[in-house]
Amino acid sequence: MIAQGDMFGPDQKVVLHLLDIPPAKSRLDAVAMELEDIASPVVAGVVATTDYAEAFDGVDVALLVGAMPRGKGMLRKDLLEKNAGIFKGQGEALEKHASRDCKILVVGNPANTNCLLAAEAAPSIPRTNFTALTRLDQNRLTGQVAKKIGVQPWDVQGAIVWGNHSATQFPDARFMTFADRSGESISWTSVTGQVAKDLGEEEGKTWIGEELVTTVQTRGKAVIDARGASSAASAAAAICDHVRDWLLGSNGRTVSMAVATEGNPYGIADGIFYSFPLITEKGGKWAIVGDMDVSASEVQARLEASTKELLEERSLALGK
Amino acid sequence: MIAQGDMFGPDQKVVLHLLDIPPAKSRLDAVAMELEDIASPVVAGVVATTDYAEAFDGVDVALLVGAMPRGKGMLRKDLLEKNAGIFKGQGEALEKHASRDCKILVVGNPANTNCLLAAEAAPSIPRTNFTALTRLDQNRLTGQVAKKIGVQPWDVQGAIVWGNHSATQFPDARFMTFADRSGESISWTSVTGQVAKDLGEEEGKTWIGEELVTTVQTRGKAVIDARGASSAASAAAAICDHVRDWLLGSNGRTVSMAVATEGNPYGIADGIFYSFPLITEKGGKWAIVGDMDVSASEVQARLEASTKELLEERSLALGK
Repeated sequence: MIAQGDMFGPDQKVVLHLLDIPPAKSRLDAVAMELEDIASPVVAGVVATTDYAEAFDGVDVALLVGAMPRGKGMLRKDLLEKNAGIFKGQGEALEKHASRDCKILVVGNPANTNCLLAAEAAPSIPRTNFTALTRLDQNRLTGQVAKKIGVQPWDVQGAIVWGNHSATQFPDARFMTFADRSGESISWTSVTGQVAKDLGEEEGKTWIGEELVTTVQTRGKAVIDARGASSAASAAAAICDHVRDWLLGSNGRTVSMAVATEGNPYGIADGIFYSFPLITEKGGKWAIVGDMDVSASEVQARLEASTKELLEERSLALGK
Repeated sequence: MIAQGDMFGPDQKVVLHLLDIPPAKSRLDAVAMELEDIASPVVAGVVATTDYAEAFDGVDVALLVGAMPRGKGMLRKDLLEKNAGIFKGQGEALEKHASRDCKILVVGNPANTNCLLAAEAAPSIPRTNFTALTRLDQNRLTGQVAKKIGVQPWDVQGAIVWGNHSATQFPDARFMTFADRSGESISWTSVTGQVAKDLGEEEGKTWIGEELVTTVQTRGKAVIDARGASSAASAAAAICDHVRDWLLGSNGRTVSMAVATEGNPYGIADGIFYSFPLITEKGGKWAIVGDMDVSASEVQARLEASTKELLEERSLALGK
């Protein structure tokens, strides 16, 4: 998708730095060969390496995708510590070698906490340049709502994901709207209202507040169960969406990314990375949309569950 | 890439019919789930099935990708017969269920002969609607030439692939040009001339006529050796390029596709599918570029080698 111009637009040439671990070097070289064989209209060069200094040298955008997966019988604490080592190392490499305005997207899980570790290790790169992926969750929420209402995904907007990219995330459909094309002209209509109409007030509320939330929270596992492997195409598409909307601007639409909590308008604890609704503008500036109503007690409970988990992850990963 | 609009353009909505064999049904369902999770701006529907009738029902474009791979110790004859069964079956399904103007791209190997089998089984679909993929070879040729000259792939044009998508193919760089940006204005310069200048007349000729040909012919194997699996990203990109340039038009550029030989201007035997340089126009019309000089004896020998192989494949696959 990068080689097709989908991530940075069709007019932006790209030099790709590909990093993998030494045992995967031959497969990495094959990826470089295939990039050559694509004769891409945008790929101006490929560096395939197992060396951090070479990989991070002067990069303007860093996608930190690889992480240690959880093995059988592995404790969560061990997983967090193992990944802490990886992402601390990559943060240090960013600090040493990357462009001073490098934009970083962390995908490898636990993504929010790995993002924190990388940011902590790269103090001279602005903390606002570090983000973690929750766009896949946002897209899943959009897809599920479109299916439920019986419309196309491009006719649905306003999906928000709060918190951690984990089972404590809060996929929030309360402010979503869809294009109702049944009348003379298109009218943007409340998803909550439509679901209440279709299912009844009480059942609609349960669907939006419980069922839908659980479906999105556990969607990754459902894909693994069917596929025998983690999400691939949908994760790649979400990475593409995240970077494109971040760097080229979201054109006034709300997008979800996990960002540093310092100064956030929702009272989430400092010192973690947390997914919020954001508006972005060309060049990579972002601002949290501050006026969503999160006062309901069940919403507060969900936001707090994710905060609590992220504070725990931090203390396990940092050992403090 | 289809879900990003790369194949049919960003304004063309698409309903995807996905076909796989019953043992792969769960993984196929996972692909459908992921397509839902992409919330694509162009995918208007997904049908995931193991049933030919459902898969081919009303389709406007058919990508025949799956084929039986050659197992250890498997004779070429057995491989051809096995695949003949698959592609005859898919041709019959196209005949029964597809749009009468369905455009077909065969990718599964042996692609040219599988394409012939599908076309034979679907007599009411125009034979000119059947094509087999040699765009990957064309892109590989472009990539190799760009690397040799030291320019970017988008500054190289005119790559042609003749014949069979196999080791007898003839990747023909003789008419290629590149954008020389060293002067005040861009001048399109002969690749052959530049290579002769860089390597010397004799060595340049050997590189274009022998080394480069062998490199492209055996590139698939080189990728397999490095990757431990067949080309994936580059094959997908080539499929995308093939369909886009075929259906949206090649804008006067030459593209290579394997098409039916009936009425071809190069005297290639009838009754096979053979890769030629073509110009395409929006809607899917194509015409073979008829004035390339193929009179040199070494060129004729290459073209004939591919013809001979394709005639043999036909007689093995059709048993006649």
